[in-house]
Amino acid sequence: MTFSAEFSVRFGEIDYARVVYYPRFFHYFHQAFEEWFDGALGRSYPDLVVKENIGFPSVRVETEFLRPLRYGDRIRVDIELLDVGRTSITVGYTLVRLTDGEVSARATITNVAIDNDTFQPVRIPEPWRERFLRFRDG
Amino acid sequence: MTFSAEFSVRFGEIDYARVVYYPRFFHYFHQAFEEWFDGALGRSYPDLVVKENIGFPSVRVETEFLRPLRYGDRIRVDIELLDVGRTSITVGYTLVRLTDGEVSARATITNVAIDNDTFQPVRIPEPWRERFLRFRDG
Amino acid sequence: MTFSAEFSVRFGEIDYARVVYYPRFFHYFHQAFEEWFDGALGRSYPDLVVKENIGFPSVRVETEFLRPLRYGDRIRVDIELLDVGRTSITVGYTLVRLTDGEVSARATITNVAIDNDTFQPVRIPEPWRERFLRFRDG
Amino acid sequence: MTFSAEFSVRFGEIDYARVVYYPRFFHYFHQAFEEWFDGALGRSYPDLVVKENIGFPSVRVETEFLRPLRYGDRIRVDIELLDVGRTSITVGYTLVRLTDGEVSARATITNVAIDNDTFQPVRIPEPWRERFLRFRDG
Repeated sequence: MTFSAEFSVRFGEIDYARVVYYPRFFHYFHQAFEEWFDGALGRSYPDLVVKENIGFPSVRVETEFLRPLRYGDRIRVDIELLDVGRTSITVGYTLVRLTDGEVSARATITNVAIDNDTFQPVRIPEPWRERFLRFRDG
Repeated sequence: MTFSAEFSVRFGEIDYARVVYYPRFFHYFHQAFEEWFDGALGRSYPDLVVKENIGFPSVRVETEFLRPLRYGDRIRVDIELLDVGRTSITVGYTLVRLTDGEVSARATITNVAIDNDTFQPVRIPEPWRERFLRFRDG
Repeated sequence: MTFSAEFSVRFGEIDYARVVYYPRFFHYFHQAFEEWFDGALGRSYPDLVVKENIGFPSVRVETEFLRPLRYGDRIRVDIELLDVGRTSITVGYTLVRLTDGEVSARATITNVAIDNDTFQPVRIPEPWRERFLRFRDG
Repeated sequence: MTFSAEFSVRFGEIDYARVVYYPRFFHYFHQAFEEWFDGALGRSYPDLVVKENIGFPSVRVETEFLRPLRYGDRIRVDIELLDVGRTSITVGYTLVRLTDGEVSARATITNVAIDNDTFQPVRIPEPWRERFLRFRDG
């Protein structure tokens, strides 16, 4: 399955070169990641991190930037789940400019489940593992 | 007394108009506020918020923006302590462009001491009150 | 008339005190301001700043912060137009927590129309003045 | 040669998990990149982008996050120049927590020289190429 979230490029996200400052692409990815929980996994990310006290920090990020984003662009982030491990998931992101349909950036990000208090990796709780597998195979 | 902190305007702090996006002025003010604790009050702000579990959220902000900041500008934020109350302090900020010595912005910000867990106002602890008064009258 | 824009509080907008870092309130206000053009004034803000080369920097900001925002909160920003001058507009913002309907913050922000190249104030172009007045009196 | 820049982790850079929000690591890298020009290459990055109208957008980013950063941490970013091509450079970043000397993150980022107006790749101007080679071999 694929999940998609849409955003507008904001005035304050532009840098001196009049394109989106590249660290903000990762904020777009993270916002899409948060919406993915609510929109396709059946429970919100705040539920996971606040109520179950589990976090999913990013431990590995690979990104290719292909085309810049400009002020006024409307964008879509497509999420697919590439891998579900015992303590981690690997998520693929494709950022598309809706103006012309071109891919602006691609990323592969690995997140490890941790206990928010100890920051130590934990096994992904079974109900969450099932949600992830259902999405991956859906 | 006055405390001053210096910063450089960064590439990613610029907006589409090629000046610093105005919400980032408040980030400059907050960074200067954090450095003020370390640099002039004798204990760091992390000490206060992490070890003593007290926060100082801003409850009232008044700002005048007089001249824009551009990429490459070096800036100085001058802090003075306008008022020390039972549960709050009021801090004055003047942001100066070092390039030409002109004032870019002025702000008056009131912060209330709170317990970080309950988010309820608390009396400013006596050792902190003394540090503030020493700075104000120094 | 009133225009409203809704947002979700994001994971990365939280600070050490586990509430939204106050400079980000101004980013919410600015995002609502940008959506207001598209949603209620009839032309987008990128149209104004990119095509007509006019900017609307904030020159005066007054804000009261009443209640904190937490991770997972859904919020609404209500915009009303308080004043339309020859070269400036004054906009009122009310930020409401949708979770409990409480007001989290109020702001009054004055923006001056400028030529983006010279950064000098300009008279608000007549078609824009009409759009603003239509909204104010609508 | 290696160039190092130091930063403090700020109150507003923390996320809900009480560690630095990972997109901000890329802002640290970019700030170190900007300081590198001034501090070790002999001309500032604003000189390059504003006066020579050349940009260096990131086209490829690989990052490993090893240990979290917490509020109050003091950090150092070490820069080394891994490759100098005809139109691109590849820069290695190591982010060290000064508190305990542990590596928090490593990144390899490739930047392509472009004309800021056309956003098309250009050959790195010879004086800049020499500055890069001098640093790499220094």
